[in-house]
Amino acid sequence: MRSIAWQDGFVIFLDQTKLPLEEVYVETDDENVLAQAIKSLAIRGAPLLGIAAAYGFALSFNKLKAVDARSLTACIERTTNLFTSTRPTATNLFWAVNAMRHVAIDSAGQPAETIQANILSAAKALHAQDEENCRLIGELGAAILPNAASVLTHCNTGSLATGGDGTAQGILKAAWELHTLKHVYIDETRPLLQGSRLTAWELKKLQIPSTLITDSTAAFLLQQGKVNAIIVGADRITLNGDVANKVGTYGLAVLAQYHNVPFYVAAPTSTIDFEMLTGHEIPIEQRSGTEVTSFGGRQVAPEGVDVYSPAFDITPNELITAIITEKGVLRSPYRTAMDDLKKKDLSSMVRRAVFH
Amino acid sequence: MRSIAWQDGFVIFLDQTKLPLEEVYVETDDENVLAQAIKSLAIRGAPLLGIAAAYGFALSFNKLKAVDARSLTACIERTTNLFTSTRPTATNLFWAVNAMRHVAIDSAGQPAETIQANILSAAKALHAQDEENCRLIGELGAAILPNAASVLTHCNTGSLATGGDGTAQGILKAAWELHTLKHVYIDETRPLLQGSRLTAWELKKLQIPSTLITDSTAAFLLQQGKVNAIIVGADRITLNGDVANKVGTYGLAVLAQYHNVPFYVAAPTSTIDFEMLTGHEIPIEQRSGTEVTSFGGRQVAPEGVDVYSPAFDITPNELITAIITEKGVLRSPYRTAMDDLKKKDLSSMVRRAVFH
Repeated sequence: MRSIAWQDGFVIFLDQTKLPLEEVYVETDDENVLAQAIKSLAIRGAPLLGIAAAYGFALSFNKLKAVDARSLTACIERTTNLFTSTRPTATNLFWAVNAMRHVAIDSAGQPAETIQANILSAAKALHAQDEENCRLIGELGAAILPNAASVLTHCNTGSLATGGDGTAQGILKAAWELHTLKHVYIDETRPLLQGSRLTAWELKKLQIPSTLITDSTAAFLLQQGKVNAIIVGADRITLNGDVANKVGTYGLAVLAQYHNVPFYVAAPTSTIDFEMLTGHEIPIEQRSGTEVTSFGGRQVAPEGVDVYSPAFDITPNELITAIITEKGVLRSPYRTAMDDLKKKDLSSMVRRAVFH
Repeated sequence: MRSIAWQDGFVIFLDQTKLPLEEVYVETDDENVLAQAIKSLAIRGAPLLGIAAAYGFALSFNKLKAVDARSLTACIERTTNLFTSTRPTATNLFWAVNAMRHVAIDSAGQPAETIQANILSAAKALHAQDEENCRLIGELGAAILPNAASVLTHCNTGSLATGGDGTAQGILKAAWELHTLKHVYIDETRPLLQGSRLTAWELKKLQIPSTLITDSTAAFLLQQGKVNAIIVGADRITLNGDVANKVGTYGLAVLAQYHNVPFYVAAPTSTIDFEMLTGHEIPIEQRSGTEVTSFGGRQVAPEGVDVYSPAFDITPNELITAIITEKGVLRSPYRTAMDDLKKKDLSSMVRRAVFH
């Protein structure tokens, strides 16, 4: 169950819009197809967006016959614009684009084949690193979950969203293997139903006991004491620990505090925007109203109704019990935790991309 | 825009499952059709369920040729069982059944035509009373809304749910006419989308400016200060002021408190269960999982997934700013308010049905 792979000059990806009814894999050597797949959410999940953009650079550069300074720059700029214009909120995408730009720039003056090899190698390394990050996040997160954990999660944060076992879902998988996880409640996650379509499908494959609920049933579950932890992923984390994640996350964080249940965010450090101070600055993607007013081509709201459909919301740091990264578990005060993180041994590629 | 009417021995009702795409009216003289319409949510909304059950008694009794004590009792029991087994949560249905039982019992010994006339007359009076209740609730509620009110509402509480202009929505209509309402945000209200399908449709007809959101976008709106009041209806209110209403209501009440926004419940006194002390005792209807796992016949979750789908949740009284009834605005301590209410001039039919 891999959501993206590189094979003989092609990127193969699972079209997530077709799940759970069909498992359709798309094979392409065209970076434009990849960018379009990101826009249409055929490829989604913050860490996976970074991996896809990195492979997008590899596809772009594979088309170059000979490389001089001008064509190198042109290819970098074109590919950067192509991928940064897909979706605005997830940091990982911008981080990966930045990392790949640096690899390309560092390769200047070398033959086309060498540049292509360098870029592909960096993309594969970024992919492998994300897989390892998921493993580490799973390990660290499972260690702090309550025993007999009954966990509520939102959206999809599994192998479909990452290069490995997932972020929040990686923790669930690790805890399940440690026999400390009892049950998972899955928010269906309107409007695009990533919970019903993707998380329910993944947890079923993993044979982890789970129950699907509508998003607004979560509060009632918490009131009944059926949930003792909430874990979600993240699309962008700012220096003060504010978190942008799938719309609905903020409401869950308020409910967690009201019911005295820990609220955890799981994400690799590539999700942290080290240049943004607070969540107020995060650009929030607005989705088309038709995602709310129609379903499967069937209209469910009256013609012409006004819709407000942000894809993400912002959870302020004070509602977050801990942020679980591959480099450790961050807790309040988050600004200090972030400063400590910077001092840690971030991989050279991360460091180069982030602190350029 | 009437959702139910009596005409020449027939009940005519709007099939709400077909909205907003089709306005289909069903005409029937069969009380079983009416009961089935309640089960399938073709007829829904707590006050409307009471009106429908009352007309159901009229249909049942119209079939009797001659009435003796045994056939009267049999008809009462059969009709009572038919309607009380449709949906378990809304008090109004049980209240109306009880009211009609008393009318039938009081008519014992009279000719069939007289009994039938008494029952139809009581059903029509109950319908007219609900229309008047909506008007009074609208007036009282509009008076306590903030000026330039930007109100969030959940589910449907309009003319589709009642015999008049609605409960929560009756307040919105009244405030709009007083020019104190600025905007309405409508929760789509999963899984059956009463917000998208019904409330958005009604507010559009009323030309009240409104915006549709997914249920989990509500918290983000509140965070941004775009909502200064929340108003919902109710399916059952207990003596301590706890409220059963469409699932998602409780979460909104927690969010309202967190954001320091008033949370109002609007309902006629027929929604109050004067025999139930607290919300813990309210039976909560469980809906079929297929309402969550499929949409418009299209499956959206993997085969065999477990679903938890309560139709209602319980909001504890401490989260409710006020309960707006046709007899006045109730505030904490609700038990005292309820005792005062009992002393008021409840209509003789209400009194007879409730305090028998």
